[in-house]
Amino acid sequence: MRSIESSKRNETDFSPPRGTRDFGPSEKMQRDWIVQTLKTVFETYGFAPLETPALEKWETLSSKYAGGKEILKEMYSLTDQGGRKLGLRYDLTVPLCRFIAQNPKLAKPFKRYQIAPVWRDGPIKLGRYREFWQADVDTVGIESLAADAEVLSLALAVFKELGLDAFIKVNNRKLLDGLLDFAGVAPENRGAIILSLDKLDKIGKEGVLAELEQKGLAKESVEKLVGLLECKTIAAFEQMSLNEGGREGVKELKELFRYLDCFEAEKTRTRFAPSLARGLSYYTGTVFEVFLQNSAIKSAVAAGGRYDELIGNFTGRERIPATGISFGIDVLMDAMKIRLKSDKKQFRMLLYVIPIKTLGDSIKIVQAFRNAGIPAGIDLLGRGLSKNLEYASKSGVRFAAIAGEKELEQGRIRVRDMESGEEKELSVQEAINFLKNKV
Amino acid sequence: MRSIESSKRNETDFSPPRGTRDFGPSEKMQRDWIVQTLKTVFETYGFAPLETPALEKWETLSSKYAGGKEILKEMYSLTDQGGRKLGLRYDLTVPLCRFIAQNPKLAKPFKRYQIAPVWRDGPIKLGRYREFWQADVDTVGIESLAADAEVLSLALAVFKELGLDAFIKVNNRKLLDGLLDFAGVAPENRGAIILSLDKLDKIGKEGVLAELEQKGLAKESVEKLVGLLECKTIAAFEQMSLNEGGREGVKELKELFRYLDCFEAEKTRTRFAPSLARGLSYYTGTVFEVFLQNSAIKSAVAAGGRYDELIGNFTGRERIPATGISFGIDVLMDAMKIRLKSDKKQFRMLLYVIPIKTLGDSIKIVQAFRNAGIPAGIDLLGRGLSKNLEYASKSGVRFAAIAGEKELEQGRIRVRDMESGEEKELSVQEAINFLKNKV
Repeated sequence: MRSIESSKRNETDFSPPRGTRDFGPSEKMQRDWIVQTLKTVFETYGFAPLETPALEKWETLSSKYAGGKEILKEMYSLTDQGGRKLGLRYDLTVPLCRFIAQNPKLAKPFKRYQIAPVWRDGPIKLGRYREFWQADVDTVGIESLAADAEVLSLALAVFKELGLDAFIKVNNRKLLDGLLDFAGVAPENRGAIILSLDKLDKIGKEGVLAELEQKGLAKESVEKLVGLLECKTIAAFEQMSLNEGGREGVKELKELFRYLDCFEAEKTRTRFAPSLARGLSYYTGTVFEVFLQNSAIKSAVAAGGRYDELIGNFTGRERIPATGISFGIDVLMDAMKIRLKSDKKQFRMLLYVIPIKTLGDSIKIVQAFRNAGIPAGIDLLGRGLSKNLEYASKSGVRFAAIAGEKELEQGRIRVRDMESGEEKELSVQEAINFLKNKV
Repeated sequence: MRSIESSKRNETDFSPPRGTRDFGPSEKMQRDWIVQTLKTVFETYGFAPLETPALEKWETLSSKYAGGKEILKEMYSLTDQGGRKLGLRYDLTVPLCRFIAQNPKLAKPFKRYQIAPVWRDGPIKLGRYREFWQADVDTVGIESLAADAEVLSLALAVFKELGLDAFIKVNNRKLLDGLLDFAGVAPENRGAIILSLDKLDKIGKEGVLAELEQKGLAKESVEKLVGLLECKTIAAFEQMSLNEGGREGVKELKELFRYLDCFEAEKTRTRFAPSLARGLSYYTGTVFEVFLQNSAIKSAVAAGGRYDELIGNFTGRERIPATGISFGIDVLMDAMKIRLKSDKKQFRMLLYVIPIKTLGDSIKIVQAFRNAGIPAGIDLLGRGLSKNLEYASKSGVRFAAIAGEKELEQGRIRVRDMESGEEKELSVQEAINFLKNKV
């Protein structure tokens, strides 16, 4: 009895670690397509790529100006054989700060993007993983809100290219802070308040009111604040006697929207949202979150803002203004899934050559297609026609080329459309011409 | 005194961890170009991408049929908050085996590629890093040597696309084993012998002889063996009375070269090399290494072979034949460096718009270029013309568009070739047409 049990226990489980996933060919092709689309837009907007290592020094990742306490709890840490403490990066912002600190002579503005995995050893919920990809775009060294507007304009271009119907909620931390002050919330309570406000969409006005009262905030302040946050226009706040920061926030928002006009951002796709806070403490001005319209995905698919103090605090040298956005590749992938499935964009192999006792000649044929830049496979197992057609169909190949002795004698192959079942006899050159514009 | 010292000690070091590197924009663009070239060839040959997580279970990575003892010593291991033992993958073969084990119903042949970082906590030498990228291409489920020939043909296509002058040394493990047997080397000594033989090119015949004698091998055997390994043609081994395995190895090599003819592989680029062994113990037949001709890089830039037992041993289920190749992205990058520098392929930003007190209109102009798919930047700092030209020149942008009030009034911009210094006045549409074929 015991031996059976222990043999069962020893049976190897071949799944990847909890919170991580494999992406088989068709999913990976979707991911590659999304990444390539992002790269193209980022570079069109003049951002250049950066690669930093997955492993960072533990001291870098846990620097007090880095990701904050909550994220540190979720950091994967390890020790190398030389006894050095290391960690896997939990975001791409800290590595950016470190890179800038290490290269003080870098020409500014420094406009970089990075698309790479990050790791967080946190709770696994629907759509949350422990190894996941982020695509970050940041402009370092520009004070002007034109840089914030450029990043927002880039975000709209990305979603247009992806074919996703997106809109952006925009706010300003200085205004939010001014409103908290106006409502009588003491500075030391504002962090906690902001966390609750961020849930306005999720738990509604009543929910936020309850949560804020629970946190011990005076009912009067809470009602005043929540009332303020229901304003939908920037103009409404212009009339109010806010503190200096608040007035500056209003001015910045107006400037941001003016620049967005210059960038010809579609007006219906950007909305002022005074309750938007963004959890992270390092934001100093503009903050925003991107959402999808008419989608099952309710969470933000990208988010970001301005962080003028972070880099300087991190490096301990001069203040360097910065603004940026982070796209979640995994949530984008979820959003794209249905669309991509229907237009079969994921299948890259265009042709599958099936030799019928003509392997040597068929290899020459498949090479001719490949040399013409047409992605092509070939059966090297010597399987029969029907088994091969079944394999081609399973693999999602668009065309099969059947190379029988009879056809080859006449210098021809049978090209079969795997979707319609239609076949035509063509010379290899004719087939190449036929398929070339389908790559 | 003490306080100065401690403040010095506390000064943060912003370099990445030992053995890892940052790749700034121009290096990263080179890497991206190499990766994209590989991807295109791999897909043209009908291989589909796979992504597996960087983190694997410790048990998977340390399975006795996985990477072997030497590699395990270099594994980065860690424990997650749930107390699970994990490791960072040290190659892409073990994750492939695990993926196949977890997906037993996968249609075979399974032709996949994976381009991704791997980690090894080993000694750092020139060109050896602790975080480095591999590009692996494998065909799983084909016994025929046509699959080995396809992989070799793909390798030649890769180097042709990269513009690198490569050749491949090819051998067969069965033949090598037959020769060791023929020379009277006992099976239990063969592993150690193979490690020495692998150094024939590096330390020469005398060096190998000395090392083998040191390992206690009989002088007679050693001389016989080294003599055998100097044969340059497969035909020479056909005449010998080798054991069954050895004869099979000869047959396989002949078949492989016959298939290479079908794939129209350039004959001068593949060479039979009877002393080639490849360190890894899991190879069962074909083994090969790719080298560059007329290059400072003397080590192999890619290598691989057939491993028909590994997957079955790993999964503990049926035997699944497999063959593949692994390219080292970092060594390829070193090889490409000079070539890429000279033709400036790394610079993607084509145009930099310089507003002279015309920011709003200039933003509209840069957007027009971007909407036409032309990678373009713009000065958002309001710097003067000369500072801007300096920045454009430093960033390696090919053209600057100077947008002064006078020019804009006439609906024109001044387009400056940053290399020649030549300028011409064009309308935005004319400039778009001019630059479009330069992307």
